[in-house]
Amino acid sequence: MVAEARGVIMNGVTGRMGYRQHLLRSVLAIRESGGVELPDGSRVQLDPVLVGRNRARVQEIAERHDVKRWSTDLAAELSDPANDIYFDAQLTHVRHASIVQAIEAGKHVFTEKPIATDVSGALSLARAARTAGMCNGVVHDKLYLPGLRKLKRVVDSGFLGRILSVRGEFGYWVFEGDWQPAQRPSWNYRAEDGGGVVVDMFAHWNYVLENIIGAVEAVTAKAVTHIPERVDEHGQVYRATADDAAYGIFELADGAIAQINSSWTVRVNRDELVEFQVDGTHGSAVAGLMGCKVQSRVNTPKAIWNPDLPEQNVYRDQWDEVPDNAEFGNAFRAQWEQFVRDVVAGRPHPYDFLAGARGVRLAELGLQSSASGRRVEVGELTL
Amino acid sequence: MVAEARGVIMNGVTGRMGYRQHLLRSVLAIRESGGVELPDGSRVQLDPVLVGRNRARVQEIAERHDVKRWSTDLAAELSDPANDIYFDAQLTHVRHASIVQAIEAGKHVFTEKPIATDVSGALSLARAARTAGMCNGVVHDKLYLPGLRKLKRVVDSGFLGRILSVRGEFGYWVFEGDWQPAQRPSWNYRAEDGGGVVVDMFAHWNYVLENIIGAVEAVTAKAVTHIPERVDEHGQVYRATADDAAYGIFELADGAIAQINSSWTVRVNRDELVEFQVDGTHGSAVAGLMGCKVQSRVNTPKAIWNPDLPEQNVYRDQWDEVPDNAEFGNAFRAQWEQFVRDVVAGRPHPYDFLAGARGVRLAELGLQSSASGRRVEVGELTL
Amino acid sequence: MVAEARGVIMNGVTGRMGYRQHLLRSVLAIRESGGVELPDGSRVQLDPVLVGRNRARVQEIAERHDVKRWSTDLAAELSDPANDIYFDAQLTHVRHASIVQAIEAGKHVFTEKPIATDVSGALSLARAARTAGMCNGVVHDKLYLPGLRKLKRVVDSGFLGRILSVRGEFGYWVFEGDWQPAQRPSWNYRAEDGGGVVVDMFAHWNYVLENIIGAVEAVTAKAVTHIPERVDEHGQVYRATADDAAYGIFELADGAIAQINSSWTVRVNRDELVEFQVDGTHGSAVAGLMGCKVQSRVNTPKAIWNPDLPEQNVYRDQWDEVPDNAEFGNAFRAQWEQFVRDVVAGRPHPYDFLAGARGVRLAELGLQSSASGRRVEVGELTL
Amino acid sequence: MVAEARGVIMNGVTGRMGYRQHLLRSVLAIRESGGVELPDGSRVQLDPVLVGRNRARVQEIAERHDVKRWSTDLAAELSDPANDIYFDAQLTHVRHASIVQAIEAGKHVFTEKPIATDVSGALSLARAARTAGMCNGVVHDKLYLPGLRKLKRVVDSGFLGRILSVRGEFGYWVFEGDWQPAQRPSWNYRAEDGGGVVVDMFAHWNYVLENIIGAVEAVTAKAVTHIPERVDEHGQVYRATADDAAYGIFELADGAIAQINSSWTVRVNRDELVEFQVDGTHGSAVAGLMGCKVQSRVNTPKAIWNPDLPEQNVYRDQWDEVPDNAEFGNAFRAQWEQFVRDVVAGRPHPYDFLAGARGVRLAELGLQSSASGRRVEVGELTL
Repeated sequence: MVAEARGVIMNGVTGRMGYRQHLLRSVLAIRESGGVELPDGSRVQLDPVLVGRNRARVQEIAERHDVKRWSTDLAAELSDPANDIYFDAQLTHVRHASIVQAIEAGKHVFTEKPIATDVSGALSLARAARTAGMCNGVVHDKLYLPGLRKLKRVVDSGFLGRILSVRGEFGYWVFEGDWQPAQRPSWNYRAEDGGGVVVDMFAHWNYVLENIIGAVEAVTAKAVTHIPERVDEHGQVYRATADDAAYGIFELADGAIAQINSSWTVRVNRDELVEFQVDGTHGSAVAGLMGCKVQSRVNTPKAIWNPDLPEQNVYRDQWDEVPDNAEFGNAFRAQWEQFVRDVVAGRPHPYDFLAGARGVRLAELGLQSSASGRRVEVGELTL
Repeated sequence: MVAEARGVIMNGVTGRMGYRQHLLRSVLAIRESGGVELPDGSRVQLDPVLVGRNRARVQEIAERHDVKRWSTDLAAELSDPANDIYFDAQLTHVRHASIVQAIEAGKHVFTEKPIATDVSGALSLARAARTAGMCNGVVHDKLYLPGLRKLKRVVDSGFLGRILSVRGEFGYWVFEGDWQPAQRPSWNYRAEDGGGVVVDMFAHWNYVLENIIGAVEAVTAKAVTHIPERVDEHGQVYRATADDAAYGIFELADGAIAQINSSWTVRVNRDELVEFQVDGTHGSAVAGLMGCKVQSRVNTPKAIWNPDLPEQNVYRDQWDEVPDNAEFGNAFRAQWEQFVRDVVAGRPHPYDFLAGARGVRLAELGLQSSASGRRVEVGELTL
Repeated sequence: MVAEARGVIMNGVTGRMGYRQHLLRSVLAIRESGGVELPDGSRVQLDPVLVGRNRARVQEIAERHDVKRWSTDLAAELSDPANDIYFDAQLTHVRHASIVQAIEAGKHVFTEKPIATDVSGALSLARAARTAGMCNGVVHDKLYLPGLRKLKRVVDSGFLGRILSVRGEFGYWVFEGDWQPAQRPSWNYRAEDGGGVVVDMFAHWNYVLENIIGAVEAVTAKAVTHIPERVDEHGQVYRATADDAAYGIFELADGAIAQINSSWTVRVNRDELVEFQVDGTHGSAVAGLMGCKVQSRVNTPKAIWNPDLPEQNVYRDQWDEVPDNAEFGNAFRAQWEQFVRDVVAGRPHPYDFLAGARGVRLAELGLQSSASGRRVEVGELTL
Repeated sequence: MVAEARGVIMNGVTGRMGYRQHLLRSVLAIRESGGVELPDGSRVQLDPVLVGRNRARVQEIAERHDVKRWSTDLAAELSDPANDIYFDAQLTHVRHASIVQAIEAGKHVFTEKPIATDVSGALSLARAARTAGMCNGVVHDKLYLPGLRKLKRVVDSGFLGRILSVRGEFGYWVFEGDWQPAQRPSWNYRAEDGGGVVVDMFAHWNYVLENIIGAVEAVTAKAVTHIPERVDEHGQVYRATADDAAYGIFELADGAIAQINSSWTVRVNRDELVEFQVDGTHGSAVAGLMGCKVQSRVNTPKAIWNPDLPEQNVYRDQWDEVPDNAEFGNAFRAQWEQFVRDVVAGRPHPYDFLAGARGVRLAELGLQSSASGRRVEVGELTL
């Protein structure tokens, strides 16, 4: 038996991520397959209503995908008791007000990251959500990527022994926009528009580290703008005021060190666009979006520095792939399903606003460390 | 016509590096091929005398390799005018006194790194050498590795455009010594014996960076002892008091950032034991001991983050190997030959004691940064 | 909102190129996708009317592809103000009169190449078009091929340094028609019908060179009829009076030399039917219809002539493919879209009748050089 | 039974080609294998005497290779009746006088190319040799390369039908000498020292064409100096006054056209450093130093220009390798053996001084064509 559909207000799905990942690949895909399956085998169907300021675009998307309900009036939708869940994929600086409204309207709230432009804003939302007692969640999509899910499996198995260190490389070359069009929007490179690789990526690194390895206790970072001038979507030259690369050292709760580089100005000499290497006393793992491979200490070669000979070891071949042993669906959809199950069960979602606030804080402290040239300790964040 | 042989005092070649690289692969190999070839086609032959404290070992090595001259009396050899060059491969803490003696005896001096245990010691040697006016040099072997020579060629050609950043990974897993014997001596892991990965490697990074990319102007580092307890050559457990991994961020003269990890506690997921990736506006290069490959901006793929698809690009295949186009000999021998040519020409050796002092200093400041949690600026070092 | 459709008179689309490339792959494909997209996101729809002398064929094509409007009366269509653009794909010798009519009727004109059978005819059209002030264009399809677009990108990026030379090979074996049917129409091999490889291809080489490398300043050519007798579509033997191969040397504005062979009597030992190799001080590129690969000077092997050894280098493997980094559509459609945008914007199309006249002239001068055995200088062509 | 050894005066074998190819790989290799085998199975041993101006170098080479006879006095060796053959590998400008002396002394003469610095000098030697009636020969080494021997086999078999055209590409990138040392001596790039790619290579192309395809009847060429400044063996910048690339069109006796590019400023996108493609009515061949492959007309694909599809044919795979079916020795040695057999048989050597003079002439006319911008006819050269 199928329960009544839950109304989901989707605000801001005219943007690329909101449209592709949250609307198409998550909510509509869930609707298509009959709803979210619950532990008892029953299903909860979702009934989205698209909300946006640009009437023509919202209407066009709604019609293209056969979504019956759409609106430009958020307040009206929030006042409709049929709508149970509010989802926000707007630009960061307008998110706060909408989420406050949604909380006040008693909705469960799921939102894109970053939850707010600064920590105090994020905390105020977290407090409001706690007070309201509704389910609240922030996108933690990378945790649901096949590579990182397998990495978590490896960590949980004890295969690595005591974890010593994490190396992370994220990035690729984003074209400057002059002799080839850029593949990312120009606001990413303007600090005044909320751009910057620290703001974008440190929020991810925070939840990846705290959920798989250990919570971040101190950060030392160097944020740089390697390419100071770029060309925008209209062929206009503009000053890149935001950082396009960040070199970070994170000290984790269990004594491990995570060194992570995030960059839009690096050419890729890796298997995947993001890769984490985790070394432990008993083994190591290298994980990306899709893949995860390991090397146990019993398979570890005794490497010896010898400049007289070409390298005899083919080191990369000495690692072994971790099998999927499961079908990993779309990462965003997977979190959507978990969020809906938490709503139905009336329990907290593990990746809540407070977690989102910790992500915002790590970006803030990373930039502070870079500006001051000092290691910054990361205390506990409480409501 | 072959000129008269130059006497070379070789002090401390009973150790692994001194014996293999400096005696066998450099000085004896040069002797075997008739001496160092000079620009005019003539040759300068070398006539080594081995000096050491352990009479039996020195004698044994001398006889094994048909070296006629050997001694346990350094002072006597220094007073022999037939000996033109003094070379030192002793343990660091006894090096200072011997070099001072050699300078006072008017010898040209070539020495292993680090030149001294601290900057003030290094500077005092540099001053003494300058006053004496003799040729002085410190081993900069990595500059002569095929991979780094090709990297320098790529940098010099302008292929990279403006250089933005350097990523360096050095290291491999050094066994703890319990269930498998360690492949490095235990003193490396004891601070009180001059051990530590910062002291060992930052001296190298200093000259690699300043000669290929740009001088280091500031350093931020985190040095860690990931494995606190090891087992030594005699099966005894000991405390590892020195750092076995260091995560460093170096700011270079031209605005580039070099992020380099040095570790004896990492499993190798690379082609070579050390690899540097250099990214510039017009191209990138990845260099190791032997290899060097590049990617131009015209070959740079337009990478797009898409969690829904397995990676379509085989990124590693998009790089192109730089051909040798030359025969690269042993790195140590190459510097020996350059040093001898500089001695004969009566000109300074480019990698002199002052360069060696800069290397010692970078290690010192790196440890200082790690202890204080602060970025440390690196001023100019003068005599 | 979609603007009103522009009427496009398509004259002569019963021929192979006119039908396949201009009607199907360009105008009807544009119609199918809702029109040409303009910079502001709006679209201009095209409404073709097919014109031809053979009523049955025109009607048949129109009905097959659901083109409502077709006619055998060009004058009537030209007098219809709903028709904005005139396109000509007739045989060259009847093109002039029709284009003159279209210009007099105040239409924008886009035409297949060659624009005329001789330079004076081409110039008179260019003058008439300028006087009329309407948008005018000649097919420059090869500029829009993926391989040549990537080549242009490589040139523009500065990757090649100073360009020294171009090698071009175009051609394949066109069967003589006796023991296997020929794959090209027989008029191509009769000078009296406007045939000849010089007339056909030099017009292309002119715009490829002037738009990607540099304008042609002098030409030296040898045109030859290697196969003097062929068999036509009806099995009749005929004299091939036109050249079927041309060996050309073009001196370019910037001092580079382009050596290009064009031939219908060559067997293909290449990756593609046309290939250009461009060598510059800093790098080289090889481009065809689809592919483009490069070699930087840092990847250039030090080749040494050694007849004693089989070649050690696998030279072809030392080149690196330039990634698409974009979706390249059909080359003809791409120019159609640019032409329509230029018409809408009221600005000149860059590949105009004067450019077409330069192409016709280069063919003329090439034949003149071949006949006289002299290098011929190519002056500036003005109206 | 072994006949008495023939004395061979080897003048100028201290240079690279003279030493490696003529002394080591030819004369000493012949001596080592017991002499040149004659048709009757007997052998003619060679007894070289090395002659040169630099006593030390001649002596050193003689001793290194156990050549008993060496001298700095050419006249004395020429007056020794035991010396039967005179060979010359000196620099071109001193060759004439020595060969005249040798002819006057009644020796058979074999010489490196070019035989003289100009045609009149070459002709005077050819006349003198004819008058003397002795065997005379000029190095035609490329004719003896495995690839060209197989090509000649293919031509002689009639496989190609009527030959229509030849395409030749010779060359590779010779480094400028600044950031990488050049792999050819600097005199090659100075006209005043006899350098230039036309002078070097047209002599080769003349004998390759006239012996395999057809005699050259007219030449049109464009010689260029693409790199005007280079760095010499001593690190000094110099003006490159000689041509480093030549684009040539040769009209052959049988109506075929040979288009050949010769260049030291081209990056190699071929299988070998020189490649000739010969197209005929019934088949085509592509030959290099070592390989030779063919395509018959029955294997010829019906190529069709289609810009809408990636190329479906893998054209290079449609050619078939010609098997060696023989052991091809060193090219120089093969001609040496033929020359010695001709001397013994008392018959003319086919590649005689007059052939050498034709080679010199083609270079002269090629440069004349380039300077005048005119096709130059090549008449018969007679004594």
